[in-house]
Amino acid sequence: MTQKTLDSLAVNTIRGLSMDAVQAANSGHPGTPMALAPLGWLIFSKLRKHDPQNPTWIDRDRFVLSCGHASMLQYALLHLSGYDVSLDDIKNFRQWGSKTPGHPEYGHTPGVEITTGPLGQGISTAVGMAMAEQHLAARFNTPEHKLFDHVTWVIASDGDIQEGVAAEASSIAGRLQLGKLVVFWDDNDITIDGRTSLSMTENVLARYEAYGWHVQSVDDGEDLAALEAAAKAALADPRPSFIRVKTIIGYPAPNKKDTSSAHGAPLGAAEIEATKKVMGWPLEPFYVPSELDEVRRGIVERGQKARLAWEEQLAAYRKAEPARAAELEVALGTGLPEGWDRDLPVFPADPKGVATRKASHTVLNAIAKAVPGLVGGSADLACSNLTTMDGFADFLPGVEGVPRNVAWGIREHGMGAAVNGMALHGGVIPFGATFLIFSDYMRPALRLAALMKVKTRYVFTHDSIGLGEDGPTHQPVEHLASLRAIPGFEVLRPADANETRECWKLALEADGPAALVLTRQNLPTLDRTVFAPAENARRGGYVLRDAEGGEPEVILIATGSEVSLAIAAQDSLAKKGVRARVVSLPSFSRFFAQDAAYRESVIPSKIRARVGVEAGIEMGWEKLLGDGGRFVGMTGFGASAPAEVLFEKFGITAEAVEKAALEALGRA
Amino acid sequence: MTQKTLDSLAVNTIRGLSMDAVQAANSGHPGTPMALAPLGWLIFSKLRKHDPQNPTWIDRDRFVLSCGHASMLQYALLHLSGYDVSLDDIKNFRQWGSKTPGHPEYGHTPGVEITTGPLGQGISTAVGMAMAEQHLAARFNTPEHKLFDHVTWVIASDGDIQEGVAAEASSIAGRLQLGKLVVFWDDNDITIDGRTSLSMTENVLARYEAYGWHVQSVDDGEDLAALEAAAKAALADPRPSFIRVKTIIGYPAPNKKDTSSAHGAPLGAAEIEATKKVMGWPLEPFYVPSELDEVRRGIVERGQKARLAWEEQLAAYRKAEPARAAELEVALGTGLPEGWDRDLPVFPADPKGVATRKASHTVLNAIAKAVPGLVGGSADLACSNLTTMDGFADFLPGVEGVPRNVAWGIREHGMGAAVNGMALHGGVIPFGATFLIFSDYMRPALRLAALMKVKTRYVFTHDSIGLGEDGPTHQPVEHLASLRAIPGFEVLRPADANETRECWKLALEADGPAALVLTRQNLPTLDRTVFAPAENARRGGYVLRDAEGGEPEVILIATGSEVSLAIAAQDSLAKKGVRARVVSLPSFSRFFAQDAAYRESVIPSKIRARVGVEAGIEMGWEKLLGDGGRFVGMTGFGASAPAEVLFEKFGITAEAVEKAALEALGRA
Repeated sequence: MTQKTLDSLAVNTIRGLSMDAVQAANSGHPGTPMALAPLGWLIFSKLRKHDPQNPTWIDRDRFVLSCGHASMLQYALLHLSGYDVSLDDIKNFRQWGSKTPGHPEYGHTPGVEITTGPLGQGISTAVGMAMAEQHLAARFNTPEHKLFDHVTWVIASDGDIQEGVAAEASSIAGRLQLGKLVVFWDDNDITIDGRTSLSMTENVLARYEAYGWHVQSVDDGEDLAALEAAAKAALADPRPSFIRVKTIIGYPAPNKKDTSSAHGAPLGAAEIEATKKVMGWPLEPFYVPSELDEVRRGIVERGQKARLAWEEQLAAYRKAEPARAAELEVALGTGLPEGWDRDLPVFPADPKGVATRKASHTVLNAIAKAVPGLVGGSADLACSNLTTMDGFADFLPGVEGVPRNVAWGIREHGMGAAVNGMALHGGVIPFGATFLIFSDYMRPALRLAALMKVKTRYVFTHDSIGLGEDGPTHQPVEHLASLRAIPGFEVLRPADANETRECWKLALEADGPAALVLTRQNLPTLDRTVFAPAENARRGGYVLRDAEGGEPEVILIATGSEVSLAIAAQDSLAKKGVRARVVSLPSFSRFFAQDAAYRESVIPSKIRARVGVEAGIEMGWEKLLGDGGRFVGMTGFGASAPAEVLFEKFGITAEAVEKAALEALGRA
Repeated sequence: MTQKTLDSLAVNTIRGLSMDAVQAANSGHPGTPMALAPLGWLIFSKLRKHDPQNPTWIDRDRFVLSCGHASMLQYALLHLSGYDVSLDDIKNFRQWGSKTPGHPEYGHTPGVEITTGPLGQGISTAVGMAMAEQHLAARFNTPEHKLFDHVTWVIASDGDIQEGVAAEASSIAGRLQLGKLVVFWDDNDITIDGRTSLSMTENVLARYEAYGWHVQSVDDGEDLAALEAAAKAALADPRPSFIRVKTIIGYPAPNKKDTSSAHGAPLGAAEIEATKKVMGWPLEPFYVPSELDEVRRGIVERGQKARLAWEEQLAAYRKAEPARAAELEVALGTGLPEGWDRDLPVFPADPKGVATRKASHTVLNAIAKAVPGLVGGSADLACSNLTTMDGFADFLPGVEGVPRNVAWGIREHGMGAAVNGMALHGGVIPFGATFLIFSDYMRPALRLAALMKVKTRYVFTHDSIGLGEDGPTHQPVEHLASLRAIPGFEVLRPADANETRECWKLALEADGPAALVLTRQNLPTLDRTVFAPAENARRGGYVLRDAEGGEPEVILIATGSEVSLAIAAQDSLAKKGVRARVVSLPSFSRFFAQDAAYRESVIPSKIRARVGVEAGIEMGWEKLLGDGGRFVGMTGFGASAPAEVLFEKFGITAEAVEKAALEALGRA
């Protein structure tokens, strides 16, 4: 059989499987996988460097199906190119426990490199993947050994390019001139609600050109040769590439192609039969011609060969560059070199103290020296977030050295997605930074980080009304609650400089996404000869200072900047003969994950008088406080005024904590 | 004095006030107000149709300072053009209770038409303002009476145009050809972290041209004549207009201009003195030359004249078009005509039932007929959200009739901002729709709606794992909690078709933003001869069916699709001799706002055995459930499978509710 015939068989197989799987599941999206079958096949069978039997090989080309609803395209491609996705898996499309969920899920299906579905995320996350590749190439490649040299291939839909996150990330990619990023735009004129012209008449190619991308157009998505030529031209150009591919959704379904009815519902038995007749295809569901077995073996073998050649190169690198090879091993592991946290700063007690964002800057810079894979920056608030890694190179084209400091621009969402992409790529420890309030702008990316369980880190400063005069548009009130609400997303709010150091350690060691939440304003650096060691923060919450002279009567629980209010209240309560314990609780999720005995030792169930203090809303505190508890915090939006005035006006003071404690004790 | 001299005095005054106010507050952003003083002055003194002493006149030109951090520009302009903002107000910049908070706040300062500060929101919200104008013009204008004919003027910064929300909204504006929207882009090459080139090299004008905008460039932001000529050309063009204005941040500060140090901190006494010398300006702080009194009077008089002419036209319209004039009065009031909710559908009891999204579609269409100002649509999920108002015109250029159905495209955030803009504009009742999960994409706009207390409405469907096969990327888990966390944002989750009708009524009458949260899957339509009337939903929560045969022992509290699980559990508990009460709780915030006696009558404090049921996380339920309560819901992300499998696998079933009830009673 000629290659052309085999390609045609493969393309038809993808179309057939896509129709059949959606039909069997009685839900899903058949039209896009059908339209994109040729492009997908070209990428998986020819363009892409990958070893299907070693899907996590670090130097593989990445593949991102940004239009995750077209998941059957990916599953069919994985199956046909030798990944561990069987025909039975495909028959179980969208069923409980199957390898083939409705949208591709990272960590669930071999060969799926990213969870997609929420539109705009895939293309934007791919920007981070390409950035990671660029960083690693700069860090480890030598003229003799190109250990990192791979492409990030993306297929994006109309929806992807309409989303603002993609606009942000695409502008970043243009600025950074990520030449190894290639995006195919599936221009099919159809969205769920009908023709794209209903909502979009913009000139997309001109827009991408304006971002600084190399743009091309392929007028027939069935033309493998034209697609391949465009891909080659894309790789030859130093800019990121955007290739418009004109396709017909649902092709070649005789009645439903080019209509939105092919988008999000099964074609129906009759139309599937009609389509298979047009294709000259057996009507048997889930038909895969045996000729493709040989093709699959070919892809697997070529992939294996490529990977083995790379392994050989790595072996040579180990001999030629033993020190860097050792570094590489760390980078591809935890990213944290032995003893990385040995010399982190210890802050002396200081009643005037320091803002935790400032302590964070000191800690971050110590870490930056010890952890060369730390890469990140701020969404144009570096001088407020204090996240610059001093003395390290900027992530900009033409800059000498290993790029580490990223100026994301005023693009929080693009940053969030790109940070996810770097983490997914591996080999780097990425972070992003902005004001806590603007975590809202990147929330879909934060959620995806949690869902994918990737190790992304965030620095969110200006964490309460304590930021003062900028007012309610900039004062987070509900954000601690709403971030804690995301399953698996760790929120770390340290109480002073030394807790900030500990929280950075926890963040870097966390298994999933973790955010440091830091103050603008100064906080006292606690005297740890009086208070419990900051290291205890690793239990999420701990007794910072217990009551003197007997068992506590009331527990004051606080986080971040409000811990010092709890301490002051403890002192004044003591003067009134009330024994109060102060608990610092930098991480709710970590504390709740401790064993019951530890939790009981910190917050004994028999002590019902409890006061929570946090300059945010109460939501999320109730479980800790119980029916007998009181909360001192915010109940609505903030206001513009100096910080100390705001704490006073909103009643978040040591006096208020004291009063709440007495109320909880029934002594008010 | 010549006009030129007066203009120059005004521009210098704005610069002086901006420097002085920021210095006095010891915080704020002086550089941008200084750079934009000429443009701002041109808009307020010449371009803009407005009556400063009647700042809510409906046919005024709108003004949006998208870069809200430049608030001193707006306050100085308000002061100099005769709004109720005094020099003392300006001296109190950024202080508690002042009219001049750090960022402009809608509803707080006369003449501030929108709260800005979070970048990208202003320019995007302006799109909605221009849409509202277009709708009202189509609805009320006659060839004789142009009651609606005003421009929306926007000043946007680099940050605004980097944000993805602006990309989305700008693409919408291009599609809709909003010719009366004029955006000035302050191209000053500076962001907080330094030169914009650090993060941006794109060709912004080409990008806006690609969106379908008319673009122009003014190379000198000091050149009032060139700015005015560009503004006129913008208005003459049928497309939305984007005008690049090259400015120098901090101009004319001799040492700090054109640097990021002029952006976000006081210039300092020495630099202020040096700047005033360059300007030839008195050193006296807060200096306003008396010559500007006359200028202010002139602006006020011209504004008054314009408004009075409009009032005359309105009077003539009332005579010529009495019916439409009456409609106009309603539109400019609550927007809800007398008896609008009289004939809303009543759904007969039906055990098979209907999805609440589908009931919502029926209700929405009934409302659409009765409430002609209802305008909105979905972010490309109209056929899933079921939000099309059948038989009404699309919001598209060239379409006949009054535009009402909006195809927002796959642009949730742009939609959210534009919906805010329509509500701010007034005269319409705007809504947006998407899947509940994608409320995350528009969260910053939702928060602003709550902060501004504007009457925006949302339809969020596919509200839980009940959406089934699309899997965890599409299944909201934490979203009910995180939306309820936004102060003043009402979440309405009806339990059946008739509660859906009631919730629509509540949403339309709500004082602030309100979201309907609806199912994809069918829910039984409850037999209201057996269950309490759906109208009771107006108390937020109500006893849906009480225990029989005596006081309840346990209270089962549920929302939306889980109410029928609570009912089934109530039945099976009854068979075991356990008396359970079922409470339906469509709106937490509304329930908590009821008087204590009512709340006590629904959830008596002495009944400690309580079970909450909701297919989301527990956060936010604790206060209702108390220490003795149990919760049946989600603890992590969902999965891809048919809905009924998911409810079973995640343990959200009537059996689980029953078991939790027995546990709460200590009988498990």
